[in-house]
Amino acid sequence: MATHWSLPPTDALRADGLRIADLDTSGTPGFKGGKKQASGYQAERAQVLSGLQEKLYANGRSGDYRNILLVLQGMDTAGKGGIVRHVIGSVDPQGVDHASFGVPTEEEKQHHFLWRIRKALPRGGQIGVFDRSHYEDVLVVRVHNLVPAKVWEPRYDEINAFEQELVGQGTTLVKVAMFISLDEQKRRLMERLERPDKYWKFNPADIDERGYWPAYQEAYQVMLDRTSTEKAPWHVIPADRKWFARLSVTELLIDALEKLNLDWPPPDFDIEEQKRRLEQA
Amino acid sequence: MATHWSLPPTDALRADGLRIADLDTSGTPGFKGGKKQASGYQAERAQVLSGLQEKLYANGRSGDYRNILLVLQGMDTAGKGGIVRHVIGSVDPQGVDHASFGVPTEEEKQHHFLWRIRKALPRGGQIGVFDRSHYEDVLVVRVHNLVPAKVWEPRYDEINAFEQELVGQGTTLVKVAMFISLDEQKRRLMERLERPDKYWKFNPADIDERGYWPAYQEAYQVMLDRTSTEKAPWHVIPADRKWFARLSVTELLIDALEKLNLDWPPPDFDIEEQKRRLEQA
Repeated sequence: MATHWSLPPTDALRADGLRIADLDTSGTPGFKGGKKQASGYQAERAQVLSGLQEKLYANGRSGDYRNILLVLQGMDTAGKGGIVRHVIGSVDPQGVDHASFGVPTEEEKQHHFLWRIRKALPRGGQIGVFDRSHYEDVLVVRVHNLVPAKVWEPRYDEINAFEQELVGQGTTLVKVAMFISLDEQKRRLMERLERPDKYWKFNPADIDERGYWPAYQEAYQVMLDRTSTEKAPWHVIPADRKWFARLSVTELLIDALEKLNLDWPPPDFDIEEQKRRLEQA
Repeated sequence: MATHWSLPPTDALRADGLRIADLDTSGTPGFKGGKKQASGYQAERAQVLSGLQEKLYANGRSGDYRNILLVLQGMDTAGKGGIVRHVIGSVDPQGVDHASFGVPTEEEKQHHFLWRIRKALPRGGQIGVFDRSHYEDVLVVRVHNLVPAKVWEPRYDEINAFEQELVGQGTTLVKVAMFISLDEQKRRLMERLERPDKYWKFNPADIDERGYWPAYQEAYQVMLDRTSTEKAPWHVIPADRKWFARLSVTELLIDALEKLNLDWPPPDFDIEEQKRRLEQA
């Protein structure tokens, strides 16, 4: 890592004090190379991630409750799906609990907003992936006034309390907000209208949402300001360059896993005794 | 494919009429090459699988209920986990519904044996993966008489009826039984006792199970004879060679996906109109 980053990604991408309005969405903060350097490096780091993930999984199978929860937020086309496909796709599917959160169902609407989130929490040893999350309830909900302010306003504190609870239970939250420019979004949406293999990703409502861009920017800013905590910090990823976003998330996950200081679980049996038994079986 | 297989894998691995006792678990039926040929070819076919899976996922997102359900059965160390890691690991995690079935919980025991299975069925557009399955209820349950014969005996018919129902709902079942030799199992268990990074996979009870090998072989044979149906056939994979097992499952999944004749979902909007709207947004 030392050779490719001038700053550790966890620092370079930290949300604290950051103003979204000032963000260069095509930037690559902390990374010293370009797309070319990133390509082979991404493959190399994916191997590291995969090795760490296997250790996490092994510990989970051995009774360790600790896990990782990757929370992905970003406007349409920001590349959340690409992160899942290309970053999470590099680890063993047995160790991945993936959930995506769209418009709440009728049943979900009859519950507290964290109800469906709690049901999808990863088991011990897993990397949970939330493609959108409880943060939708202070983003789209706030922008469109889907519930009164007196309902969404307390949610920031509720979310912080909820996440502290998760951390206390052994979850490492890796919260990632991906930002693209309005122009880059237009290019990506246009691509969906030009390629028959991408039509299915297009939703006319995505265009309507562009009219709310400033309101979303504001909602994201408040979200970062109010819910980036010491134990569950947000990371802000300029995402115009897909390769940078993928490399960044890979590094954030590696960092989170390294901090768990995982070792292979010790045997809970007598090795020599079992070898003797096996020889005779 | 034509250049590497003398017989289509769906035929070469078909369970019909096969006697497990006669199976060469180190064989590579239908495949013309060896490990060396398989390596690059596996990567190539994984790409094909990944492309087809994306189409399945796209259709699922567009309202198509069809899906794939890969059912993996095999003795301990047969390589089920490796299939998930290396074969399913080559497709987008967003399109994978993975479930593994161990000893039933107290709650599960209070339900019909298919209750927990139904809860884990994949959504439309997904590749569901069952690491062990409802077949445990006619395998370990039968071998150890965990319930009386009058309970497990009707299960073969119940399973057939259940699977016909799934097929009628748009599920393509890919049922895979992996077989290794008793010696190969010993080698693999020994490896788990020799490598600290594998201790966690070892369970002393696995050695006890070796004493029931003939009973398991019989239970597997009856399973194949009674539940390999036209619409939901079993495939038998000699699994001493991991590369062959992985390549085989890759091919079976490709075959299942190809038979769905998937195309990219058509747009449900007017493309030109949306382009104009986007230009102005």
